[in-house]
Amino acid sequence: MERIAVDMDGVIADVSEQFFLFDEKDFGKRKTLEEVMGKPESIAFPKCREYVLTKGFFRTAPVMKESQEILLQLNKQYEVFIVSAATEFPHSFSEKQEWLNEYFPFITWQQIVFCGTKTIIETDIMIDDHFKNLDHFKRTTFLFSQSHNFLQNEGRHRRVNSWKEIADILL
Amino acid sequence: MERIAVDMDGVIADVSEQFFLFDEKDFGKRKTLEEVMGKPESIAFPKCREYVLTKGFFRTAPVMKESQEILLQLNKQYEVFIVSAATEFPHSFSEKQEWLNEYFPFITWQQIVFCGTKTIIETDIMIDDHFKNLDHFKRTTFLFSQSHNFLQNEGRHRRVNSWKEIADILL
Repeated sequence: MERIAVDMDGVIADVSEQFFLFDEKDFGKRKTLEEVMGKPESIAFPKCREYVLTKGFFRTAPVMKESQEILLQLNKQYEVFIVSAATEFPHSFSEKQEWLNEYFPFITWQQIVFCGTKTIIETDIMIDDHFKNLDHFKRTTFLFSQSHNFLQNEGRHRRVNSWKEIADILL
Repeated sequence: MERIAVDMDGVIADVSEQFFLFDEKDFGKRKTLEEVMGKPESIAFPKCREYVLTKGFFRTAPVMKESQEILLQLNKQYEVFIVSAATEFPHSFSEKQEWLNEYFPFITWQQIVFCGTKTIIETDIMIDDHFKNLDHFKRTTFLFSQSHNFLQNEGRHRRVNSWKEIADILL
């Protein structure tokens, strides 16, 4: 059974939408997609580091569209691991685990990995929205489109724009 | 630079000693080494599952003898990762991270991995006290002696009885 490492933030958890919402609360007006397109999150949302340290940020993140149904199917055909770079923000562990239990109850604790760098993760497939995680990975990679990576050339990674696209390829 | 995955419980954190202490508190008398030798922890310490769920169990675990000095040296010559199967006990995350920050301050958040199964960990060397973690591992393995594994044949894994022995081999 092939193994997939699925990133959490920006792939199944819509932290980008959280940034939009928190940013709007701070600056009074929702940024447009054009304003953030192609920009690193730290530029697009100047207070993003403060936001991720805010209690509840990860717990209340919206679920990425279609990710629940499709991950449920993938979980039957692949060995799925949710791999999140979380050790930089220790307060996020419990929020992330609770969030997973709520929205992805079929993901067991055996399938969860919280790490700092993903360079030590070995699976057959990695789905992630950050080049820093995909570039070192030796096998099949999918770059999940997010505004911060959108204007960058995907290089050797196959770009996917939605979970529907992932389903079309992997299911 | 070669990469080492170092287990936490039973390798740098002396959870066995914690079991002895908790067990003594419950049953009024410290078990002898002979009484637990070669037995799975669940047999040797009948209430061990209750203990690991007790607040403070991981935070107050003693440090394994000589592990601090030797891991500090290894950390200069290898890329060290502390890999702990912790997602079964989500309450342990913060205790384990605080414990690491106190006793191994040179280990950064980038070097910490909390997972369920270790089958997705890829490094050159793995040091662990459990066969279930070492057996699937493809490269160099060291079995750290603990009472629960002591009477078992080490098989293809090289047995080490102390951190001093690890230093003699790897430094």
